[in-house]
Amino acid sequence: MRGHRCISSRQLDNSESETEDEESETMRCISCKAEYGTREAGTCKECYEEASETEEELKREIEDLKAKVAFLRFWSPLDNITRSHGGPCYTDVVLVASSHDGTAGPPVPVPAHKAVLMSRSPVFKAMLENEMEESRSGTVKISDVSYEAIRAFVNYLYTAEACLDEQMACDLLELAEKYQVKHLKAYCEKFLVSKLNWDNSVISYAFAHQHNAKLLLDTALSLITDNMDKLTKREEYMELVEKDPRLVVEIYEAYLSKQVNTAAHKGSSIKQKSS
Amino acid sequence: MRGHRCISSRQLDNSESETEDEESETMRCISCKAEYGTREAGTCKECYEEASETEEELKREIEDLKAKVAFLRFWSPLDNITRSHGGPCYTDVVLVASSHDGTAGPPVPVPAHKAVLMSRSPVFKAMLENEMEESRSGTVKISDVSYEAIRAFVNYLYTAEACLDEQMACDLLELAEKYQVKHLKAYCEKFLVSKLNWDNSVISYAFAHQHNAKLLLDTALSLITDNMDKLTKREEYMELVEKDPRLVVEIYEAYLSKQVNTAAHKGSSIKQKSS
Repeated sequence: MRGHRCISSRQLDNSESETEDEESETMRCISCKAEYGTREAGTCKECYEEASETEEELKREIEDLKAKVAFLRFWSPLDNITRSHGGPCYTDVVLVASSHDGTAGPPVPVPAHKAVLMSRSPVFKAMLENEMEESRSGTVKISDVSYEAIRAFVNYLYTAEACLDEQMACDLLELAEKYQVKHLKAYCEKFLVSKLNWDNSVISYAFAHQHNAKLLLDTALSLITDNMDKLTKREEYMELVEKDPRLVVEIYEAYLSKQVNTAAHKGSSIKQKSS
Repeated sequence: MRGHRCISSRQLDNSESETEDEESETMRCISCKAEYGTREAGTCKECYEEASETEEELKREIEDLKAKVAFLRFWSPLDNITRSHGGPCYTDVVLVASSHDGTAGPPVPVPAHKAVLMSRSPVFKAMLENEMEESRSGTVKISDVSYEAIRAFVNYLYTAEACLDEQMACDLLELAEKYQVKHLKAYCEKFLVSKLNWDNSVISYAFAHQHNAKLLLDTALSLITDNMDKLTKREEYMELVEKDPRLVVEIYEAYLSKQVNTAAHKGSSIKQKSS
């Protein structure tokens, strides 16, 4: 075994300055190749190698799961319309927007398979299993929603993919809520949370309330309660007071409990100092 | 900064014997908590923390993918037969085993959705897209395969899951090959590789050859060429010589090239020593 030179932590700390021939005398990180001292110690070689193996295993599992997703994903019957794959795709139901947004012309039906709708949504399952009107007619009317939203909704049921902007995320979250497609609802909610800011916080809060989107609700609420001083001047705030004062009350209640917690926290930290 | 006691690598190597109060003076692995010396150095703290974060991210991705798989997975129409979920499931095609295994009674039809078969298999897609006999009659006859195998096959097309033993893995691999369901073929092949041993190596080799199962073929072949001395005595070997001598030739060719490589390797290592 080589001899070991006596080195102080200080020397080790700014060891980047040391010359190459001294490498073997100090700890060198296998990963970043920099030398390090006692207080920067991470793991021993064995644990490092174990960790690397774990990472490899996780990556393999991800590859397997991606292949499984690719296998289970459906081509959507909409592909046949837009990209004209040609050939029949044996759709046995259509979804139609009975839209009230005053768009001209008759609504365009979106074709689908009962089997797919039923497997993705318990609401569709109940609707199509029991011989209800939709099942007999092979037509499912959906009100207050655009053709584009229904297209995207059906497409998601086949592919588990959607191209979102904020409007589409809201429309799809509403549909996901209505037809109990949890996976889509979570997907839209995550997107809306990522788009949260002070300007859309009040509207998002009200929207989340309306559609039981817990994650979006809590995130919006904490954003609002962090900016109470600016809140009352906002137009959306005044509208909300008019439209749904209970929601405003909940904002203040959340603000209050936050203040109490902060106070309690401060108190305890002061105690700690004084003791 | 604390003073640093001078310690030799040797002391660090058997540092487990050191007492607690000297901990802070030596490198201690964050992961396994054991002390380590220069030659056992793994990573610095920063790299350790980075690696931990990566692991967390990978685990989150796995959770997301598992949820996606759960969403995209179908309930199989077979569930309705066996567990009698009740309600129609709008199947529009049946698969029938025109079995030659001499089982009594008429074959039991396995119900399915054309849309599902078409989305999982390009062969079914071509068959059902173009108005072929199967498409018109709504019946797909499959020869030389048991009812159980067809059931398991259809079930896999809906759920990406199968309960395998060696016989079922072979049957499903044949079906996967015939209908070009790559994901299922890979799944069965992995299983058969995991079950490979000296006793089934020759049969597996021949089977893999017949169905273009490259991974199984190579694994079986290397198992065989590692035991050439025992090979010629095996019954399956003599049968293979009778039935398909070309496959036997390939075994010997593989064995030969292996010997050449080993010789070359030995040669080079001897050279290195002598130099």
